[in-house]
Amino acid sequence: MSSQTQYASLEEQFQRIAKIDHALTFLQWDQLVMMPPGGHSCRAEAVAELSAMRHEMLCSPRIGDQLKEALQNCSDTEQTKSLHEMERVYERASCIPTQLVKAQSLAGSICEQGWRQHYKENDWASFLKNFKKVVELSREEARIRQEQDKEKFPTPYDALLDLYCTGDSSFFIENIFSQLKEKLPQILAKARQDRKIKEVDLKGAYPIESQIALNRKLMEILGFDFDKGRLDVSMHPFSTGGRGDQRITTRFRQTDFLEALLATAHETGHASYENGLPAKWDGLPVGQARNMCIHESQSLLFEKQLFLSPPFFTFFTDILHEHLPLTQKWDAGQLWDAATEVKPGLIRVEADEVTYPMHIILRFEIEKSLINSTIQPEDVPEIWDSKMMEYLGLSTAGNYTEGCLQDIHWTDGSFGYFPSYTLGALNAAQIFTAIQNEHQDWTETMGRGEIGFVHRWLKEKIWNRASFLDSQELISLATGSPTDPACFLAHLEKRYG
Amino acid sequence: MSSQTQYASLEEQFQRIAKIDHALTFLQWDQLVMMPPGGHSCRAEAVAELSAMRHEMLCSPRIGDQLKEALQNCSDTEQTKSLHEMERVYERASCIPTQLVKAQSLAGSICEQGWRQHYKENDWASFLKNFKKVVELSREEARIRQEQDKEKFPTPYDALLDLYCTGDSSFFIENIFSQLKEKLPQILAKARQDRKIKEVDLKGAYPIESQIALNRKLMEILGFDFDKGRLDVSMHPFSTGGRGDQRITTRFRQTDFLEALLATAHETGHASYENGLPAKWDGLPVGQARNMCIHESQSLLFEKQLFLSPPFFTFFTDILHEHLPLTQKWDAGQLWDAATEVKPGLIRVEADEVTYPMHIILRFEIEKSLINSTIQPEDVPEIWDSKMMEYLGLSTAGNYTEGCLQDIHWTDGSFGYFPSYTLGALNAAQIFTAIQNEHQDWTETMGRGEIGFVHRWLKEKIWNRASFLDSQELISLATGSPTDPACFLAHLEKRYG
Repeated sequence: MSSQTQYASLEEQFQRIAKIDHALTFLQWDQLVMMPPGGHSCRAEAVAELSAMRHEMLCSPRIGDQLKEALQNCSDTEQTKSLHEMERVYERASCIPTQLVKAQSLAGSICEQGWRQHYKENDWASFLKNFKKVVELSREEARIRQEQDKEKFPTPYDALLDLYCTGDSSFFIENIFSQLKEKLPQILAKARQDRKIKEVDLKGAYPIESQIALNRKLMEILGFDFDKGRLDVSMHPFSTGGRGDQRITTRFRQTDFLEALLATAHETGHASYENGLPAKWDGLPVGQARNMCIHESQSLLFEKQLFLSPPFFTFFTDILHEHLPLTQKWDAGQLWDAATEVKPGLIRVEADEVTYPMHIILRFEIEKSLINSTIQPEDVPEIWDSKMMEYLGLSTAGNYTEGCLQDIHWTDGSFGYFPSYTLGALNAAQIFTAIQNEHQDWTETMGRGEIGFVHRWLKEKIWNRASFLDSQELISLATGSPTDPACFLAHLEKRYG
Repeated sequence: MSSQTQYASLEEQFQRIAKIDHALTFLQWDQLVMMPPGGHSCRAEAVAELSAMRHEMLCSPRIGDQLKEALQNCSDTEQTKSLHEMERVYERASCIPTQLVKAQSLAGSICEQGWRQHYKENDWASFLKNFKKVVELSREEARIRQEQDKEKFPTPYDALLDLYCTGDSSFFIENIFSQLKEKLPQILAKARQDRKIKEVDLKGAYPIESQIALNRKLMEILGFDFDKGRLDVSMHPFSTGGRGDQRITTRFRQTDFLEALLATAHETGHASYENGLPAKWDGLPVGQARNMCIHESQSLLFEKQLFLSPPFFTFFTDILHEHLPLTQKWDAGQLWDAATEVKPGLIRVEADEVTYPMHIILRFEIEKSLINSTIQPEDVPEIWDSKMMEYLGLSTAGNYTEGCLQDIHWTDGSFGYFPSYTLGALNAAQIFTAIQNEHQDWTETMGRGEIGFVHRWLKEKIWNRASFLDSQELISLATGSPTDPACFLAHLEKRYG
């Protein structure tokens, strides 16, 4: 077979898999947004079957052999990169024995189902019984994945981390996190000191219909095309979809309009990235988003850097007043104070951008030790409590609901995901700094609600590059250096210092 | 292999196919109800690929061999029936060469796409160019299907008819239609004579939100469970979905509330049938709805027999007044007169139940001759015009938009579908007559808005039987005789005579 024929055959097989992914994507969206409760059992069966078919197609030994051969013969640079990403996807899927996949799926769904109750009832003991199995199987998974490439994965945890933070090692992340641990306490103290008198209460009664119109308006301004996507409502905001059809969701409360706006800006960032990926490589691994650290950088860029930049926020205040009957005529400054309140708390998803990294560092340190077997599942609550005391001065002793039971991630074994939130925040600050440096008039432009220049910059330097570069190559080429806490810390100091 | 193992293996393969059907069903619903225009191209590719995978799985020679062997060895009555229905599905799919399937799909989509324009522009000549190819390929398909079983399919048309009206031959239908052609003109004349003074104009401005609430209320009264389904809006009302998740759509006009109510009652009938099929046989061909003549009998039963029965309609009038600000306080009689207006017209989908069968008979006669090659595509407009003159006294000379170009069915080669509308209407009348005979207090019960007894009767005699009986066995066992125009004609005479 010629090198071209080999490549074409692999491309065809991955394109077929992408069609199943399309089905799974929109079935999952439907499940979370549209499906009545009666549909659960049939949907679960259909999704399980389609996932199994996908796994069968992807893990056929034929693909493995073709990949090896094609990589030896390929001379085209782009195709070689494409083959490497195919290989990554193939090896990730095929190295785990079906038996383990099934055991993990079962243990994960038992633990997650139980967690919904245990979390509410502050019942760590019951949760622990299921959680031990999840950790045991994730350690097994980590061990198998680590063996694929001991150089790339110096610890078992690195092998799981790579599934989400592809290319960023635990050593690299530790180094970044130790800098944050050193600097954040001062910023936090300063922020609390300066801002405690400014706390603004925006509570009111804001009709959902008006909020929906307002959020749609925000999306349009942020560059979302409603001919190529939708905004809907779901329990937890998320973003999904495919080429020409990005679906984002948010959650509305009648008493609070800021939460939905921030979530909408965030999800619009995710959707913009997906929509900006190069159409030419649709359906192929190399055409996908690079990793979750980059994905989260796009959402946090839209949320924390663009929407919350003073000129844009001031511009948007008028639009807000047009849509919502605010109880008082808050000015942009007051609204902005409310939107950027800093206050240490127990709950990660409610945390401000100054304290958020501490929540992540705590989780990173615990999950790393768990997977590398230096601590045991039963040790988690005590370590959690002592780290929360150390990092934020708050106790979670005996309070599992607001402590180690608050997140869903570990229940199904998604160890290695958490760091992407904070790496995303750092990347976002670094990217926006680079954009500002190249656009000296950014304040005026964004003050008119124009962010086309941001889209164009991102399209060229992030979106178009999809998975053609490794994570740190991508960030370096776009911003001049690998992920570094400097811009993020400068951003916090400027905003809160 | 034991007979049980053979059966289990086939069941497993058909269950896998059903999971792809599940995906295709909900992707199609999404496409018609939710998807933004930008999603079309990816969705089309994904659906094509999943359909191809389905076809591959279904038409594997292994299934053919297993079916033959299993049918020889099976002694269980239900399983034998199940195997026969599997065989029907297998043979229908595998007898057509892939080449022809592809050619038909292409010709159909060209003709349908073009039709959207040609229909608007009254452009028969341009339509004809594409239509000739569709007819040619459908004739080829009919010939191949007929050859599978010349006894069952005495004409090529019978082989296509069987795809929709499974079990009802063209000879059987001709006989029924000739009785209708004889009797309907008198009923029509009588209806026009008696009713011309009663015409009621209900035009007004009815808020869509209120109409949605009203239609949901109607669905609930008709037995629809919103934990197991949804009501949405689409261009054309339809019903689809799966176990525990029936999705119906309707279309609202601000100026008219009756059209949506009738459509909603109609689609609720389709959904009730699907939801009432025996769960035990889900995913297997024998567990499916029998054919379109039975399906349409359920929707027309809910629309024309239940909703429009005077006691129920009177009961519902109060609910209607609660939801809608009617310009006048119409009484049940006036509303009912408006809902049962009889007036010959050119358009099938706007036709009343007295003239509707004439529209169907005309189409049946034309499509039968077309597929059996006794007329040619270019002859259609002239025959259409002469039959419209004969049956309803209306001319369509030169008026293709309101003549032979008004329906979508023939554009993609769905010849044989039309008769199911009228056989459904006959079956509906026959079924409701049987129900009335067994429930002498039906007037009082339905006057209280209670239709549980109808659900129970249908569940036992129609829904539970799925595809275990042939079409006419099913109708005979449920109502005492095969499909017969008597009940329908009696119904029309009572309502309009």
